[in-house]
Amino acid sequence: MSVKEEALRLHEEKKGKLEVIGTMPLKNAADLAMAYTPGVAEPCMQIAKNKDNAYKYTIKGRTVAVVTNGTAVLGLGNIGPEAGLPVVEGKALLLKQFGNVDAIPIGLNSTDPDEIVNTIKNIAPGFGGIHLEDIKAPECFYIEDRLKEELDIPIYHDDQHGTAIAVLAGLYNALKIVNKGISQIKVVINGAGASGIAAAKLLISAGVKDIVLCDLNGALVEGDPSLNEPQQKIAEVTNRNFEKGTLAEIIKYKDVFIGVSAGNVVTKEMVETMNKDSIIFALANPTPEILPDDAKAGGARVIATGRSDFPNQLNNVLAFPGIFKGALKARVKDICDEMKIEAAKGIASLIKEDELREDYIVPSVFDEGVCEVVADAVINIAKELGLARLYLI
Amino acid sequence: MSVKEEALRLHEEKKGKLEVIGTMPLKNAADLAMAYTPGVAEPCMQIAKNKDNAYKYTIKGRTVAVVTNGTAVLGLGNIGPEAGLPVVEGKALLLKQFGNVDAIPIGLNSTDPDEIVNTIKNIAPGFGGIHLEDIKAPECFYIEDRLKEELDIPIYHDDQHGTAIAVLAGLYNALKIVNKGISQIKVVINGAGASGIAAAKLLISAGVKDIVLCDLNGALVEGDPSLNEPQQKIAEVTNRNFEKGTLAEIIKYKDVFIGVSAGNVVTKEMVETMNKDSIIFALANPTPEILPDDAKAGGARVIATGRSDFPNQLNNVLAFPGIFKGALKARVKDICDEMKIEAAKGIASLIKEDELREDYIVPSVFDEGVCEVVADAVINIAKELGLARLYLI
Repeated sequence: MSVKEEALRLHEEKKGKLEVIGTMPLKNAADLAMAYTPGVAEPCMQIAKNKDNAYKYTIKGRTVAVVTNGTAVLGLGNIGPEAGLPVVEGKALLLKQFGNVDAIPIGLNSTDPDEIVNTIKNIAPGFGGIHLEDIKAPECFYIEDRLKEELDIPIYHDDQHGTAIAVLAGLYNALKIVNKGISQIKVVINGAGASGIAAAKLLISAGVKDIVLCDLNGALVEGDPSLNEPQQKIAEVTNRNFEKGTLAEIIKYKDVFIGVSAGNVVTKEMVETMNKDSIIFALANPTPEILPDDAKAGGARVIATGRSDFPNQLNNVLAFPGIFKGALKARVKDICDEMKIEAAKGIASLIKEDELREDYIVPSVFDEGVCEVVADAVINIAKELGLARLYLI
Repeated sequence: MSVKEEALRLHEEKKGKLEVIGTMPLKNAADLAMAYTPGVAEPCMQIAKNKDNAYKYTIKGRTVAVVTNGTAVLGLGNIGPEAGLPVVEGKALLLKQFGNVDAIPIGLNSTDPDEIVNTIKNIAPGFGGIHLEDIKAPECFYIEDRLKEELDIPIYHDDQHGTAIAVLAGLYNALKIVNKGISQIKVVINGAGASGIAAAKLLISAGVKDIVLCDLNGALVEGDPSLNEPQQKIAEVTNRNFEKGTLAEIIKYKDVFIGVSAGNVVTKEMVETMNKDSIIFALANPTPEILPDDAKAGGARVIATGRSDFPNQLNNVLAFPGIFKGALKARVKDICDEMKIEAAKGIASLIKEDELREDYIVPSVFDEGVCEVVADAVINIAKELGLARLYLI
C-alpha cells in the first residue's frame, strides 16, 4: 500500500486525528455536582468577577485554535475550509504530541479578510492563542496584523513564522560550515508570498543586510506598482541596490538561495553563478526548486529541503509546538521577532559543534529537546523584555 | 470542604475539564508522513472533490460545537462568554461521557443575533452539529431558526429542547400515575423564556390541548403588545380560552404546573387550588418554585425538580448526549419534534411499570440505556421519516 493509500485508510479508520476527552471523573452524582451543576457555578462566578480567571478554571490557558479557511493548503491551493481540515487537525495533533498544547481545528468558511478577523475575534474568549494556517497571501498579513492589534492573545501564522524560524535555524548552522558572517551574506528569496516575506523580515531582524526577493515576475523592486501592499512594504527594506531581472539574473553572486516557491525553478547552471560555498534551501514541496544532487553539482556546499527523505529537513514542526508551549506558559500577548530569533538559535544549538556537518544542520523533529529549547526561548525573551504576563513563572 | 470550594479547587487543578488528544500514533517519520505531509494531502484532495468526504476523513462527523455567548448562564444571567466557558466545557464533558460525542466549547463574544449567526455559520465546516447553550431569550429563537435554515447540520438549543424533552418524559410517567390522558390535562407553564416556550411547543406536538404560559406579568394572552415576538407566537397557539391574571389565578383548576422561572413563586395554597392529583414540576435552580414538601402538603401527587437531592430530577443530561449521538449517527439535518417526543417516550419507558412510583418517574442520568434509548429514538424517527442521510445505517 502506498503512503497515499495508507494515509487515506488511516484517516478513514480513525475518523480524523483528534479526540476530545474529559479531565474530570464523571461516574456518579457527586462527580456531576463538581463538573456540572451546582459546582460549575463557582468558576463561572469567579470568571464573571475577573475575566483572567478563565486561565485558571478553564482550558483557555492551554488551548489554541488552529484556524484555516483553506485558501492556501499545502501545494493544493484554494480548496476550501472542509478540505483544509485534515491539515489543521494534523497541526493540532502535532501541537499536542510535541508541545502538550491542546489545539482545536477550525475550518473557517470565509475568504473576506474582515469577516475572518471578526469571526476569530468572536470565538477568541475560549482560546489562549490563535494559530493561523493555510490562509493565502496577501490577506494573511492583514488578518494577522489586525488580530494582533485587536486581541490580547498571541496570534501566529505558521506558514509565515514557522518557515521563517526553521530557515533561520538552518541558516545559523549553515553559515558556521561555510564560515560566513550573517551580516555579510547576500541572500535571494524566491517566492514573495507568506513564507518568503516572513522569512525576509526575520532575516533582516537577525542581521542580514542584503536580501532580494523574487517572484514569477523577477526581483521585487521598491515602487513597482504591480506589487501588492505587503510586497511593496518588504520591497522598501530589501533590494537596496534596486536589482532588476529574473531569478536567473538575481541569483548571480548570492551566497544563499531560499526557495519557497515551486519545483524545478533553479538549475545547476544557476547555482554555478552563485558565490563560492553557496547555501541552497529549496523548500518547495513535494518537488524542491532544485534537487540536492543538482545543487551539489552546481557547487552548493549546504543544501536543505522541506522533505523528510533528504538530509536537512527544514520543517515548521521544529518551531510551532514550542512557540505555543512557551507563549502559553509565559502568557505573552505577542510572539515577537526576538523570540523567533532566539528560537532559531535554540534549534541550531541542538547540533553540537562536533556533530555539525553539511548534511546535518538541523535536528530531527523527533529529537529530544527541540520543543523545550524553543519554548524556553520564548519564555526567556518574554521575561527579559517584560512581556510575560504569568505570575507563575 | 463545601461543594463550591471543592468544585473550584478541582477546576483549578485540572485547568478546565477537557483535553484534546490524538487518535493516530506520532512516534517517527513514518507516522508523521501519514498524519501530516505528505500523507495528509490525500484526504484534503478527496474532500476538495466532495465536501461530504469531510465526514469520512476528519473529526467532523463525530464532533459538535457547544456554543455560548454567556448571556443566560445558569441562574447567573448575562455574565459574558468567558464566564460561560465552565458550563460549555461541562456540556462537552457530558456529551463525551454519556454519548461518546466529541465536543468543543466555544465562548462567543457577541450579543448581536446576526453576528452570532454569521460567526457560527463561518466556523461550521468542521462540525457535525451545533449545540447552543445559555443564550438568552428571545434572541435564542431567532438564532436557532436562522441557523436551522442556513446550515445543513443539526442545530439544538439545549436550554429549550433539553428541558422540553425531560419535562415530557416526566409528564408521560406522571400521567400514568394519576391516570389522566395527555389530551385532557390543563397545564400552566410559569416562565416564558427559552425553556417555557420550547416546553409549550413540544407539549402541543405531543397532544396537550390546554396550556397557559405565565411570566412575571401573568398569563400570556394573544395580541398583548407587551409580548416579544416568540411570546406573541406561542400566545397564538396556547391559552385558547384567553385566560387573564396572575399565576395564582391561572393555576386554579390546572392539572399540571411546570415551573421554569424562579424560586418560591408557588405556595402550598396555590397548589390547593389545582385539580385533584396535581403534578408539579418545579424546575427552577437551585431554589425550586415550590419545595416538594410544600407541594405535597398542597395536595400534589407527583412532584419533580431540577435538583439531584430531591426525587425525580428532570435534567437535560437525560436528553442531549443521546440526541447528538443519534443525530450524528443518522446524520440528520434537523432534530424534529417527532424525534424529541420519541426520545421522551424512550426515557419514560426505562421505568418499568412495576417500578413506577410517585417519587420515581424518570431514570437517573447514570442509569444504563438512557443515552441509547434517546439515540435510537432519533435514529428510528430519522429512518421512518426519511431524514437519515447516512448510508451506513
